[in-house]
Amino acid sequence: MDRTVGEAARACRDAAEHVAALDTDAKNAMLRAMADALEADETPILAANAQDMSAARERDIGEAMLDRLALDPARLAGVARALREVADLPDPVGQVTERRTSEKGFTIERVRVPLGVIGMIYEARPNVTADAAALCIKAGNGVILRGGKEALHSNRAIAHSLRRAIAAAGVPEDALVLLDDLRREAMMELMQLTDIVDLIIPRGGEGLIRFVTEHARVPVIKHYKGVCHLYVDREADLDRALDLVLDGKTTRPAACNAIETLLVDEDIAERFLPRACAALQSCGVELVGDARAKALYPAMGTAGEDDFAAEFLSLKLAIGVVADADDAIAHVRRYGSDHTEVIATENESTANRFIHALRAAVVMVNTSSRFSDGGELGLGAEIGISTTRLHAYGPMGAEALTIERFVLRGSGQVRHARNP
Amino acid sequence: MDRTVGEAARACRDAAEHVAALDTDAKNAMLRAMADALEADETPILAANAQDMSAARERDIGEAMLDRLALDPARLAGVARALREVADLPDPVGQVTERRTSEKGFTIERVRVPLGVIGMIYEARPNVTADAAALCIKAGNGVILRGGKEALHSNRAIAHSLRRAIAAAGVPEDALVLLDDLRREAMMELMQLTDIVDLIIPRGGEGLIRFVTEHARVPVIKHYKGVCHLYVDREADLDRALDLVLDGKTTRPAACNAIETLLVDEDIAERFLPRACAALQSCGVELVGDARAKALYPAMGTAGEDDFAAEFLSLKLAIGVVADADDAIAHVRRYGSDHTEVIATENESTANRFIHALRAAVVMVNTSSRFSDGGELGLGAEIGISTTRLHAYGPMGAEALTIERFVLRGSGQVRHARNP
Repeated sequence: MDRTVGEAARACRDAAEHVAALDTDAKNAMLRAMADALEADETPILAANAQDMSAARERDIGEAMLDRLALDPARLAGVARALREVADLPDPVGQVTERRTSEKGFTIERVRVPLGVIGMIYEARPNVTADAAALCIKAGNGVILRGGKEALHSNRAIAHSLRRAIAAAGVPEDALVLLDDLRREAMMELMQLTDIVDLIIPRGGEGLIRFVTEHARVPVIKHYKGVCHLYVDREADLDRALDLVLDGKTTRPAACNAIETLLVDEDIAERFLPRACAALQSCGVELVGDARAKALYPAMGTAGEDDFAAEFLSLKLAIGVVADADDAIAHVRRYGSDHTEVIATENESTANRFIHALRAAVVMVNTSSRFSDGGELGLGAEIGISTTRLHAYGPMGAEALTIERFVLRGSGQVRHARNP
Repeated sequence: MDRTVGEAARACRDAAEHVAALDTDAKNAMLRAMADALEADETPILAANAQDMSAARERDIGEAMLDRLALDPARLAGVARALREVADLPDPVGQVTERRTSEKGFTIERVRVPLGVIGMIYEARPNVTADAAALCIKAGNGVILRGGKEALHSNRAIAHSLRRAIAAAGVPEDALVLLDDLRREAMMELMQLTDIVDLIIPRGGEGLIRFVTEHARVPVIKHYKGVCHLYVDREADLDRALDLVLDGKTTRPAACNAIETLLVDEDIAERFLPRACAALQSCGVELVGDARAKALYPAMGTAGEDDFAAEFLSLKLAIGVVADADDAIAHVRRYGSDHTEVIATENESTANRFIHALRAAVVMVNTSSRFSDGGELGLGAEIGISTTRLHAYGPMGAEALTIERFVLRGSGQVRHARNP
């Protein structure tokens, strides 16, 4: 495409009006056709992905990144299945969330409408291209995607397939725009189109988020890092707590809802820490701790300030011993990222203190941090997990991609009656 | 105060934690004490306002601005009454908006929590100082106020009074900070405190909004202009439509929910326009119109492109004749500001077309635009009317100053059960 970012965005805005005008059945049929198209185009999509993978291997981007980038027939089928699941979700658009009759006799409704045009800026996972497009379209929006350069060929192939299905459904294909121009200047242009783009959702690392925050003039909902803590209180059920540690750290360490730091109450540290550390090490987890943790389990490394602030995204865990729940709260306030925080305790009042003292989008008592996920929390699917304290906070599904407005219907009511 | 903006904002953030921790009764008692304090300090507040008024008269800022600036005992009593009304509103904080038990057995609640620290940037109305502070505090937040220089003495006196009442309630007075430093550099500093300020709400003219949009790195909800239209359809009840015109334009022309443009269907223009124009002129409204309107009522002036884009905020109205509802929709899309749009018609399908085709935060059928107001729409009070299509759209009350988060309570549930 030789269009400028502004031209592409304007085309998306115009196409978004067509999406907004579709009824629920038409939108869902289109989403299912998009899923079919991905399956029909398996060969070119996997070929494009192979191209990205071999370039990535040459640039030595690391195993975790390679795994996020990789597609195979099973993963692509999973992406198609996810689109069909989005089609099956309830349609948030048109929902009347409140209906009243005013004293003056007119009705007041609050009605969900699409946001408009959503710009999604993300890094190397090609499945996000399809997932984000599907959720934005489900909520009646146009979507502009700006993926990472590592996945450019994969993203192009996926977008090409989805756009063809959109056009076949009678909607302008620019309802989904993939930005080809990956220079930062192009991203900046996108983020400054205040009359066209209603929302930018950046999902990625610190550098990307900082860049977007500094340059965006359109509203931004950040999907920033998850430095998630599990605090094991003196009144915790220690068997359950051990389950939470292992599930939180080892089942998918690259996920943002994995725990990065384990905090243990000093009263039970001697009983709990060596046992937990041994179990973690047997799962291949690298451990680093503060002086008190290390004294109880000398086989761990020494944790520095950086380790407690880090989102490892790998089988590495920082461990600290704290004096009590208040000390744990102080630690989380200092190092947490407002994503997900967990307390293991059987004491309800300690649990409530933990909940109320912390600002995180998701706070949990005796459950695994790994449940901090749109699917697990009943949203059906998620476009990400907002760490911006506005509009949507925590896992965001289709509803979070809409906005409520007021619709009034009356029979000539005026605020100040005239004297005839 | 010799504090920097950053120091003052950090103090507000710390104080906001105290506000967030107050229960409903304590917050309401504090709000009532703030109302009492304003009444007790009537003498110094009115003296400060007199100082602002005489400076403003010397600088010849115009009657509309002077009226917005002026306080007298009745208006100050009104401000105190508004604070007591905010105290009487339901407390949004702690509301559980959803509660479910997951298949895995843990409970999921969505709970309203305060946003945190809200920065309010506004122009010359000193009552906003008290209203905004009250709503932000009702919703459990800290508030940083940056008013216009015309009202600086009034704002200082009001803030001094309110802060004393806050301190007397045992909350750090910095829960309400009034910025004394009115240089743009200071405003810029405030808007870039991404770790401290959760939201900026600018309320004012085009220059202010553009400045904030360009420089803010924290989230912004704009309260921009209201270029509100009333479209009188060929199937309107013309007597009702006339009531809507007069109520919309003449009852408070300086309000953002007043109508600025009247669009009339050509089919009924001959019957309706001369009659409406005569009634408007007898109320002192200056009329400007397009060629077809002027042909039907030659006493009006000629409307240029600028007039149709203008928010007059005065007894001036632009008038256009349109071919039909679709033509009216096209006009509103071109010139509207997404604030409030009204159609007068007895045809439900035309009404629905108008509603669905327009993006405005508030769309109305056969009711006066002047009902686009938090109080009239049942929000109790409003901090303003959002024209940002995110978080809150249209009139914003206390609830819009909170955010929902997830609270999970379980008994050790994990996402992937371990093989023992």
